Amino acid sequence: MDMQSKLDKLRLLDKEWGHLGRIIAALQWDQETMLPEKAVPERAEQLALIEGILHERFSSQDTGSLLLELGSSTENPGGDEKLPHIDRDFLKIIRRNYDKAVKLPTDFVSNAARAEGLSQAAWVKARKENKFSDFLPHLVKMLDFARQRANYWGYKDNVYDGLLDIYEPGLGAEGISALFKPLGEKLSILLKKISSVARPPTEFLNKDFDINKQNLFGKTLMDVLGFDLSQGRLDVSAHPFCTTLGSYDVRMTTRYLPKNLFSSIFSVIHESGHAFYDLGFPRELHGTSLAEGASMGIHESQSRLWENVIGRSRSFWLKLFPVLKDQFSLELSSVDFNAFYRAINLVEASLIRVEADELSYSLHIILRFELEKALFNGKLKAEDLPSQWRSKMKEYLGIEPETDADGVLQDIHWSMGAFGYFPSYALGNLYSLQFWDKLKSDIPHHDELIGSHNLKPIHEWLKNNIHIWGCRLEPRDLLKTVTGHSLSSEPFLNYIESKYSFLYGLS
Amino acid sequence: MDMQSKLDKLRLLDKEWGHLGRIIAALQWDQETMLPEKAVPERAEQLALIEGILHERFSSQDTGSLLLELGSSTENPGGDEKLPHIDRDFLKIIRRNYDKAVKLPTDFVSNAARAEGLSQAAWVKARKENKFSDFLPHLVKMLDFARQRANYWGYKDNVYDGLLDIYEPGLGAEGISALFKPLGEKLSILLKKISSVARPPTEFLNKDFDINKQNLFGKTLMDVLGFDLSQGRLDVSAHPFCTTLGSYDVRMTTRYLPKNLFSSIFSVIHESGHAFYDLGFPRELHGTSLAEGASMGIHESQSRLWENVIGRSRSFWLKLFPVLKDQFSLELSSVDFNAFYRAINLVEASLIRVEADELSYSLHIILRFELEKALFNGKLKAEDLPSQWRSKMKEYLGIEPETDADGVLQDIHWSMGAFGYFPSYALGNLYSLQFWDKLKSDIPHHDELIGSHNLKPIHEWLKNNIHIWGCRLEPRDLLKTVTGHSLSSEPFLNYIESKYSFLYGLS
Repeated sequence: MDMQSKLDKLRLLDKEWGHLGRIIAALQWDQETMLPEKAVPERAEQLALIEGILHERFSSQDTGSLLLELGSSTENPGGDEKLPHIDRDFLKIIRRNYDKAVKLPTDFVSNAARAEGLSQAAWVKARKENKFSDFLPHLVKMLDFARQRANYWGYKDNVYDGLLDIYEPGLGAEGISALFKPLGEKLSILLKKISSVARPPTEFLNKDFDINKQNLFGKTLMDVLGFDLSQGRLDVSAHPFCTTLGSYDVRMTTRYLPKNLFSSIFSVIHESGHAFYDLGFPRELHGTSLAEGASMGIHESQSRLWENVIGRSRSFWLKLFPVLKDQFSLELSSVDFNAFYRAINLVEASLIRVEADELSYSLHIILRFELEKALFNGKLKAEDLPSQWRSKMKEYLGIEPETDADGVLQDIHWSMGAFGYFPSYALGNLYSLQFWDKLKSDIPHHDELIGSHNLKPIHEWLKNNIHIWGCRLEPRDLLKTVTGHSLSSEPFLNYIESKYSFLYGLS
Repeated sequence: MDMQSKLDKLRLLDKEWGHLGRIIAALQWDQETMLPEKAVPERAEQLALIEGILHERFSSQDTGSLLLELGSSTENPGGDEKLPHIDRDFLKIIRRNYDKAVKLPTDFVSNAARAEGLSQAAWVKARKENKFSDFLPHLVKMLDFARQRANYWGYKDNVYDGLLDIYEPGLGAEGISALFKPLGEKLSILLKKISSVARPPTEFLNKDFDINKQNLFGKTLMDVLGFDLSQGRLDVSAHPFCTTLGSYDVRMTTRYLPKNLFSSIFSVIHESGHAFYDLGFPRELHGTSLAEGASMGIHESQSRLWENVIGRSRSFWLKLFPVLKDQFSLELSSVDFNAFYRAINLVEASLIRVEADELSYSLHIILRFELEKALFNGKLKAEDLPSQWRSKMKEYLGIEPETDADGVLQDIHWSMGAFGYFPSYALGNLYSLQFWDKLKSDIPHHDELIGSHNLKPIHEWLKNNIHIWGCRLEPRDLLKTVTGHSLSSEPFLNYIESKYSFLYGLS
């Protein structure tokens, strides 16, 4: 077989792995949105089987041999350097994924999966009963599996780097610390300032908002955002998420809380941002391993850009608020635009990450990052997490949870062993403003476009500058290519300071 | 390995095949109910891949060797005769399925699958444009693939028997003819008698029935029928169906037509009957190849028993009609119970099978069976189907379609190569009344139970007598075991004659 035939064969295999991955996504989507209660255990077995088949096929000797033969060899001196860029990127990504897959022994994978299932169930119970001690032994196991995983994979400076690398390649704990430390300090100061001025009134939100009407408004919102229903869906699940079942099949979910009008609105905008990324990959990447986001942080930059920068802007709501007011004519009759605009941008120290505002959100993340880092470099023991959590909450947000359920037990991530995931959320905030600043200079009339809901030029810009790359570029290279800059918290801080100084009349 | 270990290994493999089969069912269910329009082609590729994996695994040498070793051998003299009955039945079914699978060359399977896809698309277009000639070349190919398939599998007397055997094992074309001939004659005579008396008024149905209200009534209906929503769902699709995604996950669909109130009501009852069968298998069969209906005809007996015998009975609606009338208080205000009861049992010769009433439905099937039989024994050429269709419609139903779209092109089955499937529908009618007669003698107060919507004893009877067997018994043995009788059209004819003579005041 010549190089081209080998490459073609690898592409064909990649297509099959992709199909299997998306079959898994379909079964998981169904589990979260449709699955009858009693069918849960059997679905877990179906998923385990198909995940096993994918792992077996992907990490097979066939893949390894092809990758070897497509590298540097006598038959192929100079390796793949003669290939077009896109083929080299393709090989780079397959190699990266393959190396990660084969380094984990099959036994380890299935033991970890089994332990994660038990740990997650224990976490649900412990959170409900507010008993950290019941969850602790599982947490210790999860930490141990994570350490082993990082050891199998190898890492730069310390174990934690190996874990961070899965979600945000190349940055490492030191790189993240250098960004998060000053960011945390500045956000914390700003939050204290805001806490000291008068809280805008929001009591008009203490009403029952009919969920059928919320659903109707959600459809309107998707239409305004430009979500194409011939390529995706909106359904309901316990926690909002977005997942990709095919090149033209991206499904997002929301939840409707009668007492919280904003929950579904901003989750629809947030998940739409994720969906636009996955639907924005160019045709030549479809069905290949290159049709992925560059990292979790970059993915989050897209959802946060839509949710916060566009979705909580004055311009976006000028035309949309009357529509919302029509939908809830009784409930919102006495509310004027300015009160509404201040309400969707209310800043307030709160205990729960997923309910946090745009400013304090990153503080929740920095806290988690620092705790994870301390856990992995041996400076913190798992049993001391609850007290450390409290003291860091006090330090960054000025409040403390009364219970562990509202503190260290609030998130699912650690119970699944997903250490290193949290930073992506705050990195997404930073990336989003760097991209946004560039978009603003490329499209000077962006504000008019948003005001008139003519969002197509913004979609096109994001597609042509960011989505077009899939995961061909590392996050840092993507950022450099798009903006010319390295990762920095300055654009985000400038945005936050300017927006909220104005909103809260700070000097 | 000893016998027990081999059997355990086969059971484990069977469990995996089952999971894969149900993953396929999940993807197909999603395709019919949820899939965004542009995602259709990629879903076809995902399905082809996973079906290939299942075929490969099931028809592997591993399976063959295990089956061989579990048969009669030096190591195991007397074969599996020492095993408990349930294990012997298990081996019998795996052998039957395995023999069918390995006899088909992989090339043949994929060529046929590809041709079926094209044929189905051509049929959709030809039906729309009423052009039988455009569909004819595909139909000829489908007939050819069907012949080849039957030849690979082998058959008793003629090719058609080989095809019939997939859906209704053991009966054969001659067996079916012997039943259908007198059945057709008697139904035809009865239909003519009914056509000559006054048609009951049904103009009160010519209204718009809000589909949200239809959906609400559908939920009530499921509740009355005893459908457990923790083990299944009701969704919407173009054509109603029922499919099994897990031992505790059976999903049915309906469609809501504003101009046709009865369409969704009776499809919900019909599909519930299928669902009760699949949810009624005993625990020890769960996750094995024995957790299947005994045949398509037996499966159809369950849906038709619920839809027609119970669902169109006077007793069932006495308590339910007021609920329906409450739901549609304006639309049904002037309708009394007797008019309603006569309307749900309206008998009228009509062109379209899926809209036919309980009496004339079997005539549509007999017509298709006779045409299929003639096609396979060489007495009819595919190009002569339209004219033969017309003359048989005239003969059995006294009417003729003006277009092929309302005639020979109306059903999807032939376009998919599913020859031999149609008889199941009419056989289901026959089985259902034989079962019903036995149930009536075992539960003398059945009518009171139906009237009070206390359906549990009826569910229990069906479970304990029919569902309990899964596919352990051949249809004829199941019928004999349950009723003591062989297959006969007499109970069905008696039921039809007595019910409709009364309804139409025939002497």
